[in-house]
Amino acid sequence: VTVADLTERDLVARIQQQLPPAPPWLLVGIGDDAAVVEPARNRVEVFTVDALVEGVHFDRAFTPPEAIGHRALAVTLSDLAAMGAAPRLALLSLALPGAFRVDDFDRMIAGMASLARRERIQIVGGNLTRTAGPLTIDVTAVGAVKRRQALTRAGARPGDELYVSGAIGSAGAGLRVLRRAASTGDDEQTARLTAAYLYPAARTRLGVLLGRNRAASACVDLSDGLADAVHQIASSAHVGAIIDADALPIDEAARRTFESLGGDPVADALTAGDDYELLFAVRPRTRRRLAAALHHGGAPLTRIGVCTAPGPALLRRNGIDAPLPGGYAHFAR
Amino acid sequence: VTVADLTERDLVARIQQQLPPAPPWLLVGIGDDAAVVEPARNRVEVFTVDALVEGVHFDRAFTPPEAIGHRALAVTLSDLAAMGAAPRLALLSLALPGAFRVDDFDRMIAGMASLARRERIQIVGGNLTRTAGPLTIDVTAVGAVKRRQALTRAGARPGDELYVSGAIGSAGAGLRVLRRAASTGDDEQTARLTAAYLYPAARTRLGVLLGRNRAASACVDLSDGLADAVHQIASSAHVGAIIDADALPIDEAARRTFESLGGDPVADALTAGDDYELLFAVRPRTRRRLAAALHHGGAPLTRIGVCTAPGPALLRRNGIDAPLPGGYAHFAR
Repeated sequence: VTVADLTERDLVARIQQQLPPAPPWLLVGIGDDAAVVEPARNRVEVFTVDALVEGVHFDRAFTPPEAIGHRALAVTLSDLAAMGAAPRLALLSLALPGAFRVDDFDRMIAGMASLARRERIQIVGGNLTRTAGPLTIDVTAVGAVKRRQALTRAGARPGDELYVSGAIGSAGAGLRVLRRAASTGDDEQTARLTAAYLYPAARTRLGVLLGRNRAASACVDLSDGLADAVHQIASSAHVGAIIDADALPIDEAARRTFESLGGDPVADALTAGDDYELLFAVRPRTRRRLAAALHHGGAPLTRIGVCTAPGPALLRRNGIDAPLPGGYAHFAR
Repeated sequence: VTVADLTERDLVARIQQQLPPAPPWLLVGIGDDAAVVEPARNRVEVFTVDALVEGVHFDRAFTPPEAIGHRALAVTLSDLAAMGAAPRLALLSLALPGAFRVDDFDRMIAGMASLARRERIQIVGGNLTRTAGPLTIDVTAVGAVKRRQALTRAGARPGDELYVSGAIGSAGAGLRVLRRAASTGDDEQTARLTAAYLYPAARTRLGVLLGRNRAASACVDLSDGLADAVHQIASSAHVGAIIDADALPIDEAARRTFESLGGDPVADALTAGDDYELLFAVRPRTRRRLAAALHHGGAPLTRIGVCTAPGPALLRRNGIDAPLPGGYAHFAR
């Protein structure tokens, strides 16, 4: 059975079955022209949209439907985390190929709904349409944060230290393993790397904690890789940066995966993308504010470099500074 | 020059050039991980998302890029109008084929930006991605309305009269003319019908006025045709309906266009879709509340039928009642 065998109403009903009951602030939910929502009190609102396109952002040959749904929501939640915002609601817009199986549709929604429950974000509406092209999933997410606690990219100053959460390169190495370009030769390592690609965690709690006591002066998420994220902060805050290659938290199995493909593990981990970690800047004088984020943020934090006076972003390796590689350029490649 | 020759940053800059300056409530706009917005005071918020997919919702052979951009925003604004909400902000998510020309990209954004200025809706963020498939445009729109003034589909009761704004069938007839399936033989009529399809007006002012003094007990927009809209209100409000075929506001040129193709103009106008008008219910006792909407709503209003006790939705024609045709079923066809 494919989605072409059902009506739009049938498909919407299948989504609704997997969603939790409406919270009290949701005045009108799925099924009307639009959703009506009571705003959160004493908060400003944070809006973001992200899309996953089959063939560009995922390959159905090795990405289970649950992972597609999970990732589509996680990448949007990661943007909210980078602003220090708590997730609140999401809208889901799907363009479905007629041959998409209803079973896969249900599994994709299940993957998204499962993450939505854990992250306490309510799916309040959306849109369904056919497409003659690839499966395309747009998720709009809305979060809330106190006005003075919103994190931006622009707040970094020369002297601020740069930290990254979790590990970098794991998702990129996992993708290479899934493509069967590489093998770790170890089941546990394979599972860890592929899960980093298929089921990334959004650093929601960490982002909220960094905003709450102004521990971070600037923050960005790593959707297009750590090198790109450094360039984003440098460009928005008008600072330079030096990144210490030896400090980068690269998973040992990821490092070996890149090496087995003849790559440079540092350069590959810096540019691989698909790690939904946070890069943030911290004023040295207020470093002790990191304590809450360290203990309750749910991820290790690693100091990887420092912001400098306006100038280029550099990678320091064996005592030699070279330009930090560029990020992932969506349209040029 | 195609979009594949540019970077994502270049394309975002081209969008920003066409947008008006940020309003004071936009605390962080395009260029960060997400937008940060001060909520409107004493209002509830209305959220909707809609998508246009090339080959499903438009054909680039006869739809100029400006019209694609205009329609992508208009269909979303129409959902806000149906809730009685004033537009506030939008997010734009584009999946672009690599061969899409930058010139066409700019013209598409110009069509959207022009409507956004007129409707006073601010584009605060978005997402750009490549696709190997058709051009796909997702617009999320957010509006604001006083809590008691939000219109839903569910408020209609037996005895309420049904009204529709503007004319029905014009966009559908215009689409047939654009496809060269039909001709009006008259330049002015051709221009009127094709403009109804290419540049639909969202009934923003009308929707706000209907909500403001509770003139309407229920409201829905006509994206999938008038017949479908009647079924939506009937199903949400648990009422039946009788629609008077003779009362339907069908443009004379549209009627002749449908007839020239051997169709039944009443059935075709009821099911054609692409008319972004409003269907709404009015309690007979409070009919005088319609005065403001009539004088300042920007569209003629026509009484086309009545809600009845729970039962089928019927079309009354020459004294005979028959089932009202079904709406446009997205996935079954």
